[in-house]
Amino acid sequence: MAQDLVIGIDVGGQTAKSGVVDARGNIIAQTVISTENDVTADSFVSALAEALNRIVAESKAEGRIRGIGVGIPNGNFYTGMVENAVNLKWAAGGNLPFAKMLQEQMNGIPVSLTNDANAAAMGEMTYGAARGMKNFIMITLGTGVGSGIVINGEVVYGHDGFAGELGHTCAVRHNGRQCNCGKTGCLETYASATGVARTAREWLEMSDEPSSLRSLDVIKSKNVYDAAKEGDALALRVFEFTGRILGEKFADFIEFSAPEAIVLFGGLARAREFLEEPIMKAMNENVIPLWRNKVKLVFSSLKESDAAILGASALAWEL
Amino acid sequence: MAQDLVIGIDVGGQTAKSGVVDARGNIIAQTVISTENDVTADSFVSALAEALNRIVAESKAEGRIRGIGVGIPNGNFYTGMVENAVNLKWAAGGNLPFAKMLQEQMNGIPVSLTNDANAAAMGEMTYGAARGMKNFIMITLGTGVGSGIVINGEVVYGHDGFAGELGHTCAVRHNGRQCNCGKTGCLETYASATGVARTAREWLEMSDEPSSLRSLDVIKSKNVYDAAKEGDALALRVFEFTGRILGEKFADFIEFSAPEAIVLFGGLARAREFLEEPIMKAMNENVIPLWRNKVKLVFSSLKESDAAILGASALAWEL
Repeated sequence: MAQDLVIGIDVGGQTAKSGVVDARGNIIAQTVISTENDVTADSFVSALAEALNRIVAESKAEGRIRGIGVGIPNGNFYTGMVENAVNLKWAAGGNLPFAKMLQEQMNGIPVSLTNDANAAAMGEMTYGAARGMKNFIMITLGTGVGSGIVINGEVVYGHDGFAGELGHTCAVRHNGRQCNCGKTGCLETYASATGVARTAREWLEMSDEPSSLRSLDVIKSKNVYDAAKEGDALALRVFEFTGRILGEKFADFIEFSAPEAIVLFGGLARAREFLEEPIMKAMNENVIPLWRNKVKLVFSSLKESDAAILGASALAWEL
Repeated sequence: MAQDLVIGIDVGGQTAKSGVVDARGNIIAQTVISTENDVTADSFVSALAEALNRIVAESKAEGRIRGIGVGIPNGNFYTGMVENAVNLKWAAGGNLPFAKMLQEQMNGIPVSLTNDANAAAMGEMTYGAARGMKNFIMITLGTGVGSGIVINGEVVYGHDGFAGELGHTCAVRHNGRQCNCGKTGCLETYASATGVARTAREWLEMSDEPSSLRSLDVIKSKNVYDAAKEGDALALRVFEFTGRILGEKFADFIEFSAPEAIVLFGGLARAREFLEEPIMKAMNENVIPLWRNKVKLVFSSLKESDAAILGASALAWEL
């Protein structure tokens, strides 16, 4: 039978989502397993392989799987290793030959992996908003800020396999916020879901401007979004500020690789109504005239629950 | 006879330098013509073709020229056009099909062009300090700051052919210096030869610290270099500041494309003794731990008078 299907797997700190995907990007079977209880890599890979075999059987896909693509934090495309993934308990921060381990458990079906943002870029290029584009930059706005850079139709991996850490480029040079990476002022300390909540909390602390956010014990980005929806002036300014910071950095990114578009994805990208205008304004004010009003800002059209699986599956078509 | 030679041409505002080059990077004949007197593109291209035919005859290279590579401001690799080159009088800021015009005058020998910094990157990769490297960023420190980005062994041209304007990424966000491009705070307003002189003049104005530079009517980067050589404290701090600004931005560039090295070339790169240490320090302090102390800083080893011709000639081997 023709090998007309692939498997996409999105591995995160809490769960691993897997799906059997056809060439049109339909997920014909899917499953989710927890990654929290596994304490060793072997037990996690075994549990994952078992889950995959179940959805392969379910979708009558035996013998039809061309390859398996995995989006995983700290995944190195070149080596198939997961390196220093401190957020994956079973990986224990070490270096694991994850692709090789999974391939062995899956009877030799080839496995390719990369980090989640690169997988998202592949997904947009294969099935989503970047279809037909050869040069674009994918920015994922979630807990942090991830990025996948596509040049000439190919994801940029760089010398060591880890290119595209745009969330850690410098947004604020002096007195910037402390980032988990150890630096200060990184883009993701401002322009992620976490960053939005942090901005709101900082600003509430710094003035006594009235805001509906003051009544909350804990402020998350969703609260800021809801407040902005209701016209809360402080919440609206938080998004304007966030959009400006993003737009300023996007201008630098454009000057690097002259992309056709910047594609936004992730939880925070759902605040499009508040982010799009300030991003475009700052991006066009800060880029050289050559690219002013020429680079598109595109919001992902993939369903969020499917996008991670689709992105990872797109890797497998190249195998 | 085998087509075993190429021609490299470096076109600038004052002169066009051309050379016949062999596969080992030897310039076996060369010539320089002035570009200042030509008022039309036709007359310039005719004069250039005449000069080329002369060195071809001189080096007995008739029939052996495989192609012609041109490094030229605002040259678009994709289209062979020179677009809005305000510094080339004969181009008059318009859009010229330069590659096509030259090819016609040269009996159909294929012509390829790109901007000068991209040509420099090709030169370093083919004959120079980046031989064997597949991922590096070329930074030219001259009157301005130019850049050529190489990923997977290929120069990045981007969606429109103009990628790699790193001299116009933002070095100073607030109250930055006015740049010729219309923006403020661009890297090249600080980290070019012009920028170094500007920093020295600003600092002399802002304090009454003694400095040998005070005795000069006009301060150029060469004067600052000479003063630093003699131990002038202000001049030394100017280079330290310049190096820091470069290193801070290099950290951002590394986070984009994870290069093996950053390669420096151009007049200001000759101040290596004063720039290398502050660049390395700032670069490693500002990059995420993954790349700390891992990315090389390389100074071009090509002879400056040859490098531009060699860089352009490297383009022609791909034809």
